[in-house]
Amino acid sequence: MKYPCGIRKNNNNKISYSNRGMNLESDINLTNEYYLKNNIAVIYKKPTPITINKIDYPCRKDAVIKEAHFKTPSTTDYNGVFKGKYIDFEAKETKQDYFPLSNIHSHQINHLKRIIDHGGIGFIIVSFTKHNKIFLLKGEKLLDFISNNKRKSIPIDFFEQNGYSLKIKYSPRLDYLSAIEKNIMEDE
Amino acid sequence: MKYPCGIRKNNNNKISYSNRGMNLESDINLTNEYYLKNNIAVIYKKPTPITINKIDYPCRKDAVIKEAHFKTPSTTDYNGVFKGKYIDFEAKETKQDYFPLSNIHSHQINHLKRIIDHGGIGFIIVSFTKHNKIFLLKGEKLLDFISNNKRKSIPIDFFEQNGYSLKIKYSPRLDYLSAIEKNIMEDE
Repeated sequence: MKYPCGIRKNNNNKISYSNRGMNLESDINLTNEYYLKNNIAVIYKKPTPITINKIDYPCRKDAVIKEAHFKTPSTTDYNGVFKGKYIDFEAKETKQDYFPLSNIHSHQINHLKRIIDHGGIGFIIVSFTKHNKIFLLKGEKLLDFISNNKRKSIPIDFFEQNGYSLKIKYSPRLDYLSAIEKNIMEDE
Repeated sequence: MKYPCGIRKNNNNKISYSNRGMNLESDINLTNEYYLKNNIAVIYKKPTPITINKIDYPCRKDAVIKEAHFKTPSTTDYNGVFKGKYIDFEAKETKQDYFPLSNIHSHQINHLKRIIDHGGIGFIIVSFTKHNKIFLLKGEKLLDFISNNKRKSIPIDFFEQNGYSLKIKYSPRLDYLSAIEKNIMEDE
């Protein structure tokens, strides 16, 4: 059965909008909690930006938002601090053999460029669910690809060759900061 | 006329919940836009964290949130990168001659402590509206005060002696990064 906007119903008949990219997201959230508890880094997912149209407001703690819309994010989803360095990244899942660039908004790409220009560490984490592979790709490599290619997607091979493979473990769940520390911070 | 939770109606009879602390907030937002446009720093206000209970979801771009609540923020409102440094702060207005510590949640104070521990620059900006004075206070000084005092508020004198005075100007509106650069980054 076809639903508008490519949404499919899942088994229990609820529309599965919330699940898109939720596995990677929850793995990263667990990892960030681990980093926080173990005093390794302070990295949070930013709240989803919304525009509030209607609100019931007896007082802040009892306020109920009655109508709101999602805004297009102008930045990436995650940021924080690790060993004094500013960390900033976006995480995406894809079922394809390639990463469609349409999955990242152009202002998110501009944002990553700015982060790098100002001395921060910017990157993306992409999970190729069909391949069961997760890669961290430096923002610089992402920007290079976009500048040097007319393609609208990045093949998984590019990630294999230019990114760092991340493995799901028990704890920390997806230790992306080790990859940052070994491969990126040591270069600097 | 008295409303619950200390809310007052303003002239045009709308409940003025959104205006609390909005002057300082809009001055900081203007400043951050200036920093971004002039390639000085990348600092954003985080979206307000909410919990969504009900949503109409034909697809993401048309989604309408039908019921949501505000969550207590676990971090500060603003963060970003300036000259490679991680910047993190909270901004508050007060009509008093002192800054009530109840204006900052304990987990926001813990968050600032963590930021400092991890090599970031954490601080608060407090606007004393009655005095027409705005101060930047380093997170370290805030934490010192809390450790060494049983008082539930910080007198304005403490800000005069331990903080940096910020002036409203035309552009950039409230140049807090100059204070950071002159007084904090040079010490390091």
